[in-house]
Amino acid sequence: MLVKKAYIIGVIGGRKADIKELVIAEKVGRLLAENSVMLICGGLGGVMEASARGAKTAGGVTVGILPQEEKEYANDFIDIPIATGLGIGRNIIIARTADALIAVGGEYGTLSEIAFGLQMNKPVIGIGSWRIDGVIDADNPDSAVKKALSALSAD
Amino acid sequence: MLVKKAYIIGVIGGRKADIKELVIAEKVGRLLAENSVMLICGGLGGVMEASARGAKTAGGVTVGILPQEEKEYANDFIDIPIATGLGIGRNIIIARTADALIAVGGEYGTLSEIAFGLQMNKPVIGIGSWRIDGVIDADNPDSAVKKALSALSAD
Amino acid sequence: MLVKKAYIIGVIGGRKADIKELVIAEKVGRLLAENSVMLICGGLGGVMEASARGAKTAGGVTVGILPQEEKEYANDFIDIPIATGLGIGRNIIIARTADALIAVGGEYGTLSEIAFGLQMNKPVIGIGSWRIDGVIDADNPDSAVKKALSALSAD
Amino acid sequence: MLVKKAYIIGVIGGRKADIKELVIAEKVGRLLAENSVMLICGGLGGVMEASARGAKTAGGVTVGILPQEEKEYANDFIDIPIATGLGIGRNIIIARTADALIAVGGEYGTLSEIAFGLQMNKPVIGIGSWRIDGVIDADNPDSAVKKALSALSAD
Repeated sequence: MLVKKAYIIGVIGGRKADIKELVIAEKVGRLLAENSVMLICGGLGGVMEASARGAKTAGGVTVGILPQEEKEYANDFIDIPIATGLGIGRNIIIARTADALIAVGGEYGTLSEIAFGLQMNKPVIGIGSWRIDGVIDADNPDSAVKKALSALSAD
Repeated sequence: MLVKKAYIIGVIGGRKADIKELVIAEKVGRLLAENSVMLICGGLGGVMEASARGAKTAGGVTVGILPQEEKEYANDFIDIPIATGLGIGRNIIIARTADALIAVGGEYGTLSEIAFGLQMNKPVIGIGSWRIDGVIDADNPDSAVKKALSALSAD
Repeated sequence: MLVKKAYIIGVIGGRKADIKELVIAEKVGRLLAENSVMLICGGLGGVMEASARGAKTAGGVTVGILPQEEKEYANDFIDIPIATGLGIGRNIIIARTADALIAVGGEYGTLSEIAFGLQMNKPVIGIGSWRIDGVIDADNPDSAVKKALSALSAD
Repeated sequence: MLVKKAYIIGVIGGRKADIKELVIAEKVGRLLAENSVMLICGGLGGVMEASARGAKTAGGVTVGILPQEEKEYANDFIDIPIATGLGIGRNIIIARTADALIAVGGEYGTLSEIAFGLQMNKPVIGIGSWRIDGVIDADNPDSAVKKALSALSAD
C-alpha cells in the first residue's frame, strides 16, 4: 500500500559556496519551511548548512543524509541526522527520498545528484547551477520554490 | 567539529511478529518518546510499525529507513521516511544512526542489525531476541529502555 | 600499505544505445583487453554488453557491477558479476573501482558516473557523451583508449 | 533472462585470526580453486588474505569486496579488487554475490554476513564459527567445501 506523505524537497549544492549562494540557499530553506515542506540535504557545511539554517528560522524540519559513519558530523541546524557511511554514495539517498531537488550552484557532487534526480523523473530546479537538459532554471529562491511546488502538485 | 545531538534509538525486529512482540514493541516506542528519544526503525510493518505507533501516541518523532527506492512504502506512523534503495543493506544505516538498539524478537534481518550494532560498540538490548555475546537481555519494555538509556549516559 | 594493481577501466553508457554506439563500445572493450586492462561496467545490456563482448573477443577480463540483488542478471560476457542490490547507486562503485572511465553516449545514469569520476579526480574520456567541464573528448575508440592510458601513466 | 554462471563462494572471517584459522582458511581457498569455484571475500587481511592466498596457489580467481573507497587496500592475492566505499556495509554485497558462504571463526562482522546469507536462503557453512540456527557446521576445510558444493548442486 502506497500512502502519500508530506513533501520533502532536497536542497543540493557545494560545501564550498560563495556568499551569494549561501544567501540564496538560506532563503530557499526558509521558503520551504514556510510552505510546510520538509528539507533534506547532505547535512554538512556550505549550501547544506545555509539551507538548513534557513529552514530552522521558519520552524521547519531538516534531515541531513551524511556521508560519514557518525551522525555527529551533521551541522547545527539538522534535526534528523542520518549516518549512512556511504561517502558521496549517499547522494543517491537524497535523490530517492526527495520529491524534488533544488540545486544552488554546486560542483561535481551536485551534478551527480542532479543526474540521479533526472533519472528518477523528479523535478530538478537549478539556481546558478549546472545547465543540463531537464533542469528547470530559476533566477531566485522564490521562483525556484514556486517551480518545485508547482511541478509536484502537477503530478 | 563533533556536536552532541539528541539520542536516537533503533527498534529492530521482524515484519512478521506475534501479538506479544507487537505489544512489547509498541510499549518500547511509547517509552522512548516519553524519554524524548527519537525512534529509528526499518519503516515497514510488524515490530517496526508497532514501535512507531507507540512513539506517535506519546508525541515522539519517528524515522523509517526503508529498503525500497520510494518513501511511500513507509508505515503510517513514520514522520521521516528515508528511501535508501539498498534493500536489507539499509540495516547498516539504522545501526550507524542509532545510539543504541533495542531488538524485539526478530529473525535473520534483526540478527544482522544486532551484529552491526555490536561491531560498532553500541549498546544492544534484546527482548526475547537473539542471544548473542554482547547483547544485554531485558525482560520487558521498561527494563529495556532503562538499560539502553543507562548505557548511553554512561558513555 | 597501498599496493599498485593492474589497471581497471570502466566503460559506461546506456542500456539503450544505437548501433553506432554499440560498435564503438565493442571496439573500446577489445582495445582495453589488448592493452591488458581489466574492464568494469554495469553488467547489463547496451553499451555495457557490447564493451564486455569486445573485451572477451580479445581474451580480456570483465567485471559487471549489477544494480540487482542477484548476479544472474549479468550479460553473457561478464566473467565476474557482482550483485550489489544498490540499484543505480551501484554507479558509485564503478567509479570508485575504475582507474579511469570511458563514456560512450549515455543518458542520466552515465552522467552520474561521469560526475562521480570527476569528483574523484579520475580521467573521464567521452565519445559522443555528455560535454561537461573536465571530460576529455575523444573522436573514436582508439583515441579514447590512448587518452585514458596516457592519463593514467602520467599519474 | 537469468543465466547460470560459475559458482562463487564467499570465505568470511576476521581480520584478526589465530594461526589455526589462517591454516584452515588457506586450505578452504585452495580447495575452492581446485573445484573451479571463484572465491569472494572482504579483500583485506587475516582469514580474507589466507583464503585468497590458498586460492591463488591452486590457480583460482579471487574477488575482494573492499570497505574502502580505493582498491589499493586489497591484499596481494586479490585478482579483482572492488572498492565499494561502503565500510562494513560491503558485507551485504559479499552475501549477495556468493552462492554460498564458508565462515572460518569470525566476530561480529562475520556474524552480519552469516545473518545476511541465511536471510537470503544461501548455504552457510561454519568452521569454528558462530553457532546460529541455519548454519551448517563442518569440522575441517574438506568437509566444509564438500557441504557447500553439495548444497549448491542440490538446488
